[in-house]
Amino acid sequence: MLMIGIAGGSGSGKSTIAKRLVERFGDKVTIMRHDDYYKAHHEMTYEERTKINYDCPEAFDTALMAQHLRLLREGKSIECPVYDYKIHDRSEETRRVDPSDVMIIDGILVLAEPELRELMDIKIFVDTDADVRIIRRIIRDVKERRRTLDSVVTQYMQTVKPMHEMYVEPSKKFADIIIPEGGHNIVALEMIEHRVNRELGTGETTRRQSEK
Amino acid sequence: MLMIGIAGGSGSGKSTIAKRLVERFGDKVTIMRHDDYYKAHHEMTYEERTKINYDCPEAFDTALMAQHLRLLREGKSIECPVYDYKIHDRSEETRRVDPSDVMIIDGILVLAEPELRELMDIKIFVDTDADVRIIRRIIRDVKERRRTLDSVVTQYMQTVKPMHEMYVEPSKKFADIIIPEGGHNIVALEMIEHRVNRELGTGETTRRQSEK
Repeated sequence: MLMIGIAGGSGSGKSTIAKRLVERFGDKVTIMRHDDYYKAHHEMTYEERTKINYDCPEAFDTALMAQHLRLLREGKSIECPVYDYKIHDRSEETRRVDPSDVMIIDGILVLAEPELRELMDIKIFVDTDADVRIIRRIIRDVKERRRTLDSVVTQYMQTVKPMHEMYVEPSKKFADIIIPEGGHNIVALEMIEHRVNRELGTGETTRRQSEK
Repeated sequence: MLMIGIAGGSGSGKSTIAKRLVERFGDKVTIMRHDDYYKAHHEMTYEERTKINYDCPEAFDTALMAQHLRLLREGKSIECPVYDYKIHDRSEETRRVDPSDVMIIDGILVLAEPELRELMDIKIFVDTDADVRIIRRIIRDVKERRRTLDSVVTQYMQTVKPMHEMYVEPSKKFADIIIPEGGHNIVALEMIEHRVNRELGTGETTRRQSEK
């Protein structure tokens, strides 16, 4: 099993890379999203939950995600939490995830978390300029999610940007490779695909270097 | 033929990557160094030549290097200039270079030059912190090349650092992948090796994406 961590700022194009790998390799590749592991806050009111900072490490139940990844590595299935964005809380549902040859660990902060990092065979950081990232975020939130421009900009300035600078950007240091411009970088995508291909082709374990 | 550009600052570890690929793949890989194409300055005195800024684009005969790379791509051998560091000038000798499956284009400024960039199938930038790079440079120049600490620092502050910031660092934008910490990054090295392996294994041309 090959575990590939893909981090990078909001709007960097990291999820596009993950999706391309799924398109290319189908059910040999499974995406595990840090966002699915947002902490449950049943004890709070809706109003309180809307005020949580969702861009900092404390927002995530990283210990649970790491535990699930270790189980998947051992060949066991897990029940992944399902987050309900409408109520800003973890739902009662779960989603069964089976181990696959390639597991992608996707999230803005996955390289900032030592417990996740140590599970990864390949650590990728997708590095896209802040102006390009905010443009993508505005387009997505305003056009697709029908949010007001003011609310997108306020959230960006109050939490997304400061948390990016505090946690996401410094985690680039832990990357094995840094990919400029995410899903539109064909050469980098092909290099990742070749690496995955080799994993699938030979079945050989790739834990060697990380076990040293 | 696969042409791989490897750029990055002085002391970044880029040449270590190139050397590792040669160790691994032997004569299937040839390194072409931008430094071998320092301009000839027979018209100047030795004193004048010592004062040339060797860290800026104008120091190199890039047009000649690009022409040689195009000939190699066509399957022809070339006569590579040999630079004589003792006299700070191009020597009368040349070195025959034959085309090989993988040609590495190595130099601090190879990604800053459009004529070289357009020949590359894979553009790699080795990104190492400035403090680590100057430490390596001091150790190399003081311990191995017997230069004084003062002369190394003066050259660094007067040309190496400003030219890095003006030309080398901005050329990172053109990279397909950015590799932190050069030759000591095993995961990144392995990804490059897999890519080269695939080239050698199938013999398939990889010009597709760059020809689009």
